[in-house]
Amino acid sequence: MHLFYTPDVDASHPMYFLSEEESKHCVRVLRLQAGDEVQLIDGRGGLYQAVIHEAHPKRTILKITSVQSGFGKRNHHLHIAIAPTKNIERFEWFLEKATEIGIDEITPIICQRSERKEVKTDRSAKIITSAIKQSLKAYHPILNPPIPFSKFIRQQFDAQKFIAHCIADSKTSLSAEVEKQGSYVILIGPEGDFTPAEVDLALQTEFKAITLGDSRLRTETAALAACFEINFLNR
Amino acid sequence: MHLFYTPDVDASHPMYFLSEEESKHCVRVLRLQAGDEVQLIDGRGGLYQAVIHEAHPKRTILKITSVQSGFGKRNHHLHIAIAPTKNIERFEWFLEKATEIGIDEITPIICQRSERKEVKTDRSAKIITSAIKQSLKAYHPILNPPIPFSKFIRQQFDAQKFIAHCIADSKTSLSAEVEKQGSYVILIGPEGDFTPAEVDLALQTEFKAITLGDSRLRTETAALAACFEINFLNR
Repeated sequence: MHLFYTPDVDASHPMYFLSEEESKHCVRVLRLQAGDEVQLIDGRGGLYQAVIHEAHPKRTILKITSVQSGFGKRNHHLHIAIAPTKNIERFEWFLEKATEIGIDEITPIICQRSERKEVKTDRSAKIITSAIKQSLKAYHPILNPPIPFSKFIRQQFDAQKFIAHCIADSKTSLSAEVEKQGSYVILIGPEGDFTPAEVDLALQTEFKAITLGDSRLRTETAALAACFEINFLNR
Repeated sequence: MHLFYTPDVDASHPMYFLSEEESKHCVRVLRLQAGDEVQLIDGRGGLYQAVIHEAHPKRTILKITSVQSGFGKRNHHLHIAIAPTKNIERFEWFLEKATEIGIDEITPIICQRSERKEVKTDRSAKIITSAIKQSLKAYHPILNPPIPFSKFIRQQFDAQKFIAHCIADSKTSLSAEVEKQGSYVILIGPEGDFTPAEVDLALQTEFKAITLGDSRLRTETAALAACFEINFLNR
């Protein structure tokens, strides 16, 4: 069944008008007709069953038949702060995969060794949106604007805070430290890793140094490994 | 330090001649000179330290100074049989990431719902090779030629056998079934999943139906999730 992402849908209202773009897609591309069933997700946990009341190429009207709130609600909150990769496709790939596996919040952090200083967050948000539609998730992960590393880590987080770095020193495994069903903030560095100064700064602000295993991982792979591990540990 | 993949290196011989292509890369691109240190991996667990004896653009001579065998030897054997994705980039992405995380053998399987019936295994092998160099792995994962699903599952495997499918029925989680430090064969289906007939056939040949969690995952994401999980459980 076809799924539309409709953040403006109102559960208290029985009818919903698809945007002009979605109406055109619905009628001209998908060739859906009156009486066809569709699903809506609002990005806030709402999954809606609806029927096409009027298939209009500019203003398609849907009749909402049922609403399920808190669909796929997660038992933890995962926030990954990752240095965007030099090759943006690798960062975008992480966004898609993390959304499929399960993530709540993503912040691009600009580090001392970051070759990429900016991210087109509108394009990134589209990738996340198509991933939630593809993997049927009713919650839309939050993508924050890019922020310098030093500014990010000074924020207050009501969460367990971790930094994954490759500098050889005493680190514990993420799995040994994670308190289940909690909130987590995990820092993932750029190609070339965090600088020792950045790691010290993170440790001073009570981030715990962790390892994601013995393999030498690319930035986007390390971020996804952390995402997988947190989701796995909270099953 | 620069790393070369040299499957033909002989640990019993103190000298090694880089191929013409690698010699050119070494001298013209990397501009390495006599006395510079390099590393070699043979793809069979051997990690070699070497020094450039003569930097020749066609026939560079290396002097091997030390050999470490069984470098990064894994405590288990993971074989993932995956239906290549319609968009080959997604399959190639899986090859790169699985190699980084840790995998021993990959077989492309052609299923009833496979839209892609063939894979350029030479191109795929190059992706795996660059991934082992990037992640400093001395073992080169084996990439088998594509094979029809029904033929693959009839082979004899001295391993735990699993099939990950999306058909709603009784499945256990992979983690509940895995015997640590073992050998595993895991089947991952195409876009649109395995057919019920394929699942039945797998169950008849003693593959166990497993789930990789509650998320609806793309083919390549499911395969990587299985790879993550097996590696994590064997840490």
